[in-house]
Amino acid sequence: MSHLIAVLPGDGIGPEIMEQATRVLTALGLPLELETAPVGGAAYDLHGHPLPPETLALAKRAKAVLFGAVGDWKYDKLPREHRPEQAILGLRKALGLFANLRPAILYPELANASSLKPEVVSGLDILILRELTGDIYFGQPRGMRTAEDGPFKGEREGFDTMRYAETEIRRIAHIGFQAAMKRGKKLCSVDKANVLETSQFWRDLVIEVAKDYPEVELSHMYVDNAAMQLVRAPREFDVIVTGNLFGDILSDEAAMLTGSIGMLPSASLNESGQGLYEPSHGSAPDIAGQGLANPLATILSAAMLLRYSLNEEAAAARIEAAVRKVLADGLRTADIYEPGTHKVSTGQMGDAVLAAL
Amino acid sequence: MSHLIAVLPGDGIGPEIMEQATRVLTALGLPLELETAPVGGAAYDLHGHPLPPETLALAKRAKAVLFGAVGDWKYDKLPREHRPEQAILGLRKALGLFANLRPAILYPELANASSLKPEVVSGLDILILRELTGDIYFGQPRGMRTAEDGPFKGEREGFDTMRYAETEIRRIAHIGFQAAMKRGKKLCSVDKANVLETSQFWRDLVIEVAKDYPEVELSHMYVDNAAMQLVRAPREFDVIVTGNLFGDILSDEAAMLTGSIGMLPSASLNESGQGLYEPSHGSAPDIAGQGLANPLATILSAAMLLRYSLNEEAAAARIEAAVRKVLADGLRTADIYEPGTHKVSTGQMGDAVLAAL
Ligand SMILES: CC(C)[C@H](C(=O)O)[C@@H](O)C(=O)O
Ligand SMILES: CC(C)[C@H](C(=O)O)[C@@H](O)C(=O)O
Repeated sequence: MSHLIAVLPGDGIGPEIMEQATRVLTALGLPLELETAPVGGAAYDLHGHPLPPETLALAKRAKAVLFGAVGDWKYDKLPREHRPEQAILGLRKALGLFANLRPAILYPELANASSLKPEVVSGLDILILRELTGDIYFGQPRGMRTAEDGPFKGEREGFDTMRYAETEIRRIAHIGFQAAMKRGKKLCSVDKANVLETSQFWRDLVIEVAKDYPEVELSHMYVDNAAMQLVRAPREFDVIVTGNLFGDILSDEAAMLTGSIGMLPSASLNESGQGLYEPSHGSAPDIAGQGLANPLATILSAAMLLRYSLNEEAAAARIEAAVRKVLADGLRTADIYEPGTHKVSTGQMGDAVLAAL
Repeated sequence: MSHLIAVLPGDGIGPEIMEQATRVLTALGLPLELETAPVGGAAYDLHGHPLPPETLALAKRAKAVLFGAVGDWKYDKLPREHRPEQAILGLRKALGLFANLRPAILYPELANASSLKPEVVSGLDILILRELTGDIYFGQPRGMRTAEDGPFKGEREGFDTMRYAETEIRRIAHIGFQAAMKRGKKLCSVDKANVLETSQFWRDLVIEVAKDYPEVELSHMYVDNAAMQLVRAPREFDVIVTGNLFGDILSDEAAMLTGSIGMLPSASLNESGQGLYEPSHGSAPDIAGQGLANPLATILSAAMLLRYSLNEEAAAARIEAAVRKVLADGLRTADIYEPGTHKVSTGQMGDAVLAAL
């Protein structure tokens, strides 16, 4: 019996990086069935919606989704519900992908790529765990209203609701502690409990869940301080767990510390192990179609897919070893190129990983 | 006629850094009347409240407030309304201090202090303008409730309201454009308009206000991207304007880029030029009372006070020149010390600035 994988290339560099990732997946000789569907702006152009019903149905049916990237300037003028990003929000919600794992790893070969000093970042290996289906992203009510009191009474105001229910906090906290147990046994929960009610509730529950994991050293940090400490001494962290909004900001900041966001995969999982896997970088429409894109984040996302949704640890490790080999061999796409290394195109990088498998 | 300045030293290193700043202010020979009052944990210990009515009344009466820092671990267990941070939130709200100016400047003498490579940060000079009285900090309703629908129906949930009314956005946008006009004429407005209604409203209004400032080059950036670009290439920014929550995170991140947060002042202004001035760093209870604290951020905050609330540009510039002189002379408190420079205590740094005036 083969496993169904939904392949959603998307926009910009999405199709070209996805091509390399699917070549790698196919080469492993596993019983996989890859089915491709349009998503994002590409889907809007074809079907008038960034997440057409057929694409959503495929994603639901599949064991896992391999996602490229979505977005392009040309869709910026569309009403929000038709913009490419809605596809990704829609998939997260529809599939219940509440746990977003974003490793920020600095490969020794790429230590120079970082804008931080080598003595601050070399060997960086942290995991940001972001809650992905709650918080202010989906909270109701939201919209425009007339201010009812206070100094701006009678004026138009825009508003959104931040919120977290008990189960949502507990389940992501458990994932955080479990991830820490498999790594350095340190978990830092990030919130803004000195100001927000949602955060105070978050913190209280994380402290409760911690009782189940006496071996994990738990700390709490305000989000403003976390944004600072990531710049100052990022290696002090092991696993960071935080809400959807703070996680959006901190995971991107952490990724950029490595200077090589073209290398970083991500996984978004639901309660039954179904997952969506995508590179941490965006769709980069400015370089699309020129063979400049780095396919490694997508290839490494495919490795995460094998590990988390198919339980194929050996195959995942094979891909990761192949990626390390091509880096060690000095192959670099334009985004991570430096003098003394060998610049290759998107396709050549894919070839090299295949050869190294 | 003399100008009343409220001096609120606060907790931790607050009193010792404030002592140096008031020495500097007094030495200028201006008609200033300095009146001191307790705030934060120190005020809670004395009067059972972090912002006692007398302190608030003094702050309201004064032309400007010079604020040290508040907070200490020992107050962490208090209910939120009695914690030291409430003093600062209360002052902002009561005085209507909606415009928070936080420069992130890397002094050439301190280029090494940064965790970023010198070629990425040297000469950094950006201004983060943070809206300070709106957003999710004060939005109603907030608290605990029972989830009314969705998958967590019937559960306890914590919630907060993000919100901005039209006037609040327009006035901070104007300050942003005006600040940009006095600097590099580039304004970057940071929001999360791809997800939040509040942000979409913010963006629409900033675009409207921009029509009054045709010379300023306006850009928009999502907050996650801004957190990345600050790490990647911070000098691309001139002025950043953003809401209270995103500004909290990004201004701290930007401050840390310099590696010398002990050097960075801040100003929080209301519509009538009244202001609160404070260092960007915290109360650092761990080093309090040991003469280790860097008083320069507070001294530079006093300079901002003279500039913005008293219109004493010459006196402000005199302080700033004196600070540059002591740095050039190689004097350093422990936080910015490096081999080859001369380590001094908090008081000695104050002496040196006074001598350089
Ligand atoms: C595109 C956007 C809605 C999305 C988010 O904010 O979650 C993106 O920034 C991400 O992190 O995947
Ligand atoms: C102490 C806290 C409430 C405050 C804030 O979040 O505004 C602080 O972080 C700041 O930036 O001044």
